[in-house]
Amino acid sequence: MKPVFSFVVTVGLIALVTGVAVTGQTPQPQNQPRYTANDELVMPENYREWVWLSSGIGMTYGPNASESTAANPLFDNVFVTPEAYRAFLQTGSWPDKTMFVLELRASHTEGSINKGGRFQGDVRAIEVEVKDEKRFAGKWAFFDFRGNRSPVKPLPQTAQCYSCHSQNGAVDNTFVQFYPTLIEVARQKGTLKTAAR
Amino acid sequence: MKPVFSFVVTVGLIALVTGVAVTGQTPQPQNQPRYTANDELVMPENYREWVWLSSGIGMTYGPNASESTAANPLFDNVFVTPEAYRAFLQTGSWPDKTMFVLELRASHTEGSINKGGRFQGDVRAIEVEVKDEKRFAGKWAFFDFRGNRSPVKPLPQTAQCYSCHSQNGAVDNTFVQFYPTLIEVARQKGTLKTAAR
Repeated sequence: MKPVFSFVVTVGLIALVTGVAVTGQTPQPQNQPRYTANDELVMPENYREWVWLSSGIGMTYGPNASESTAANPLFDNVFVTPEAYRAFLQTGSWPDKTMFVLELRASHTEGSINKGGRFQGDVRAIEVEVKDEKRFAGKWAFFDFRGNRSPVKPLPQTAQCYSCHSQNGAVDNTFVQFYPTLIEVARQKGTLKTAAR
Repeated sequence: MKPVFSFVVTVGLIALVTGVAVTGQTPQPQNQPRYTANDELVMPENYREWVWLSSGIGMTYGPNASESTAANPLFDNVFVTPEAYRAFLQTGSWPDKTMFVLELRASHTEGSINKGGRFQGDVRAIEVEVKDEKRFAGKWAFFDFRGNRSPVKPLPQTAQCYSCHSQNGAVDNTFVQFYPTLIEVARQKGTLKTAAR
């Protein structure tokens, strides 16, 4: 081969083997759940670069709600993997391997030029919800990374999150009723549970 | 060339020419500001897929603050282009062509199983801040897409946002003091303005 072809072949091979685009853009990592040999979920450290769905403050259900008081309400921020988000826009449903992160943060009222309302502070808890149909009997499992970010086992099926999500989630096991852009998608695709319509 | 090399050359060339990765992933769109022939900014419709920086509620400064009352505080959600976000992680500074979107949404307190706190409702306003060093005298400009999403001209230099961001932004013209993950980056990179340290 001539040198120019050799170069292109090399670039093409590198792209094929490593999955790195040859455009100078950083490739999207594959956001699939990763487990240890001990069946623990590895914390998805890059979740702040996933698609954010919504934030609330001081919500009275869900994990760590008791830590959120009227005087010091917590923000709850919800992120989903870009792959799952794109699939939801197409279908109104969550594909296998969907991951959600619920990040709880402190709120502050005075700082810099802000003298009212609330803005976000330190992380207080991180919970992950994973859809992995072959691995989990109920398809979905919940993980609590509170305290540190070491790999953790799923919460037991008796944990309140399982029954609450299953009974009250507007789509599948998830609270799409609180995600203002996705509730419309679910409505159009006909995937809202009857009670949520 | 043998067929296998021919295939690889073809794939490599397609990747080089189109900028499409050969991994089966959707390529990232280039999130650069786009203007009409009339110098109006085109609304970046995909901003909800950018990197979300933070959300606050009922904050007492900034655009449309007067619409946010104690009884009906608005949420403010801030997004930045992925390209600018990655550059900020590396340098603590915003590159040319950075775009921010500030999305204001109504808040609701009762709905589904939530009986306290607040979650997000309809969009009330969309503001965009663009860094375009050659185009704007002060490098940055602000655009108000309130009402509809048709292209708009920059707000005049006399608009309050220009002086407020310039005087109070912790990094360059931006309120990094309210973005809990980026304030640490700026601290480490030494890009915080003196008053914000």
